[in-house]
Amino acid sequence: MALIVQKYGGTSVANPERIRSLARRVARYKAMGHQIVVVVSAMSGETNRLIALAKELMPEPDPRELDMIISTGEQVTIGLTALALIELGIKAKSYTGAQVKILTDNAFTKARISNIDQHNLKADLDAGYVCVVAGFQGVDENGNITTLGRGGSDTTGVALAAALNADECQIYTDVDGVYTTDPRMVPEARRLKSITFEEMLELASQGSKVLQIRSVEFAGKYKVKLRVLSSFEEEGDGTLITFEEEDNMEQPVISGIAFNRDEAKITVLGVPDKPGIAYQILGPIAEANVDVDMIIQNTGADGTTDFTFTVHKNEMNKALSILRDKVQGHIGAREISGDDKIAKVSIVGVGMRSHVGIASQMFRTLAEEGINIQMISTSEIKIAVVVDEKYLELAVRVLHKAFELEEA
Amino acid sequence: MALIVQKYGGTSVANPERIRSLARRVARYKAMGHQIVVVVSAMSGETNRLIALAKELMPEPDPRELDMIISTGEQVTIGLTALALIELGIKAKSYTGAQVKILTDNAFTKARISNIDQHNLKADLDAGYVCVVAGFQGVDENGNITTLGRGGSDTTGVALAAALNADECQIYTDVDGVYTTDPRMVPEARRLKSITFEEMLELASQGSKVLQIRSVEFAGKYKVKLRVLSSFEEEGDGTLITFEEEDNMEQPVISGIAFNRDEAKITVLGVPDKPGIAYQILGPIAEANVDVDMIIQNTGADGTTDFTFTVHKNEMNKALSILRDKVQGHIGAREISGDDKIAKVSIVGVGMRSHVGIASQMFRTLAEEGINIQMISTSEIKIAVVVDEKYLELAVRVLHKAFELEEA
Repeated sequence: MALIVQKYGGTSVANPERIRSLARRVARYKAMGHQIVVVVSAMSGETNRLIALAKELMPEPDPRELDMIISTGEQVTIGLTALALIELGIKAKSYTGAQVKILTDNAFTKARISNIDQHNLKADLDAGYVCVVAGFQGVDENGNITTLGRGGSDTTGVALAAALNADECQIYTDVDGVYTTDPRMVPEARRLKSITFEEMLELASQGSKVLQIRSVEFAGKYKVKLRVLSSFEEEGDGTLITFEEEDNMEQPVISGIAFNRDEAKITVLGVPDKPGIAYQILGPIAEANVDVDMIIQNTGADGTTDFTFTVHKNEMNKALSILRDKVQGHIGAREISGDDKIAKVSIVGVGMRSHVGIASQMFRTLAEEGINIQMISTSEIKIAVVVDEKYLELAVRVLHKAFELEEA
Repeated sequence: MALIVQKYGGTSVANPERIRSLARRVARYKAMGHQIVVVVSAMSGETNRLIALAKELMPEPDPRELDMIISTGEQVTIGLTALALIELGIKAKSYTGAQVKILTDNAFTKARISNIDQHNLKADLDAGYVCVVAGFQGVDENGNITTLGRGGSDTTGVALAAALNADECQIYTDVDGVYTTDPRMVPEARRLKSITFEEMLELASQGSKVLQIRSVEFAGKYKVKLRVLSSFEEEGDGTLITFEEEDNMEQPVISGIAFNRDEAKITVLGVPDKPGIAYQILGPIAEANVDVDMIIQNTGADGTTDFTFTVHKNEMNKALSILRDKVQGHIGAREISGDDKIAKVSIVGVGMRSHVGIASQMFRTLAEEGINIQMISTSEIKIAVVVDEKYLELAVRVLHKAFELEEA
């Protein structure tokens, strides 16, 4: 008998039929003698519907009240899921975040979990109940309802698994695991049986949409065994995310290729090459709450330097006006330019650590196809490049082939 | 400065525009220096939508889970209402039943309030907040979410007014007060400036839809000053429901006429006239949870008696089969018949107490129009008759005229 936390996203509870299908899966696990905690998101589309309603009354909604409103999405789903289980003859009980007591700070709309009371859940699990817990939500120490931000249901699942010392946290999504890259782009993409947390983190942060990065960090921190599975298939082991590299395993050099079309590149040309320039450029950007991803600085020959960084496409114009209004004159830059026709491609793998020449193989592969590399950024287990967005698919396909990812 | 509880029903929060209009009214009261607690229902149609969703998963939903689901309707409305107030620059804060702590028993879907903690609300009111409280819901002592049953939002409003010792509880509806009868049926119907609790109870229980009978009982018990007002009009004092008859007031004999088309009549003919017959007939009906309203028994000449009672139309067939299956043979009744083509008309007024001849005036008025009376039931301040439903409108109109209700 194992204690399993199963987390189901919005598409897995999108309508009554899907919820019944979820309930039948839970029933099968229960029949095997396992104790089950189910974490569910709001029905897909519901959170956006509620946000739109809130914005009709207040264009930038007060965050406490917004959390009050949007937390109802998951509350409806837990009730419906419990009903589907009870209808199958299974003892089940729903819990809001406040009822479990998932304690968070009071940073409404993006709260962080500080503690989970596992007393009530344990008692109900021991009494034979399936506990159905609302994802995405918690309660602060004054009893205010909080939400954890987008993707917070994954975090709820992992945090519950950690608090309950669960044997496994299963994340059910609309894909059947983590792939070497997006199969819609590369039909030869292959499902990975397992992947390390570090790789998953890089894949998640590099644009692979399977799991939220916060939940992966959380799982790594608390050593929760995480498995990604499809909620639309009866069979399949999904992808196990391990917190230790299995030494005796033949580790492939590269595990996967992530990509991202959401970034734009901003270049500050002809900046005097003096200390403090990076801060003078990025300080005002950070103050305006614009997230910066890649940053590159190259020294030129004439005592000036070119400074380039990427931001989300939606924030390019905001960043450009900040630079032109507050920075350009001040630092004496020659030109400020933006380009949102770019894409980022990253190869990820713990095997990189012990293999040299991966970067050069990547660059050669792209060069052979005539794909110009605009920016490069590396970490110990990742190499990311920025290319013209029209080359994105080509770049992913040739890299997938070059690193032989289609082969098990 | 007064402390006022304002309760708004589903049509008053049906959409963002209505919620904004509600917020503007609250703002006006706040500007007068009053402390305001707002109690809101779910947006109209929302509770039924949620119940339908629940029934898709479990035809007779588990009541705990049903409450978990339907309580979200009010939770959305309190958040939206608070946002509308904050957008107007007013300090506002929403509260679920659990957050206030409206303690109830654990009779899910029809819970009764046992205690209200007024500590949090008082502190926020004193700090200048408008407190927006979810109607219809509470929490049991184990932290389970409960609902109070249909019309429970009125009860929440009155119970909060009692707990907070409010100066007035204002119930905003889609009518601008209590009328002598339904103005849609009798255009000459007149709004009553005030009415006693007893009269209101009779009107409510006799089918006047303005207020839920439970909330009126509650208000009477705790001597809460209740006022019914329109949420669609800026002006008007509505109808005040007083808990004492004002002796110096020229009390009209009859305050109003209520009517009800929802009942059906069941007759048990030729029953041996023996002690215990009433119980033998109504016992099985009560056991099946069928509510009985009027009951009449007449002794015939031949040692048998006819026994007649009314139930809700929807339950007539259920009651008939119980009687035919379990009762008829047992007590030796000659015939069991049902009639759902009936209507009930009641005249109500505390003035009846000190006036004789009201009943005969009522019966004469109906007789003059050729309306046959099928059943009669009386209380100290009410006379109710059952007539063929095709005479309902005529009966109400002629009685309204006969008792001069159109005159102030």
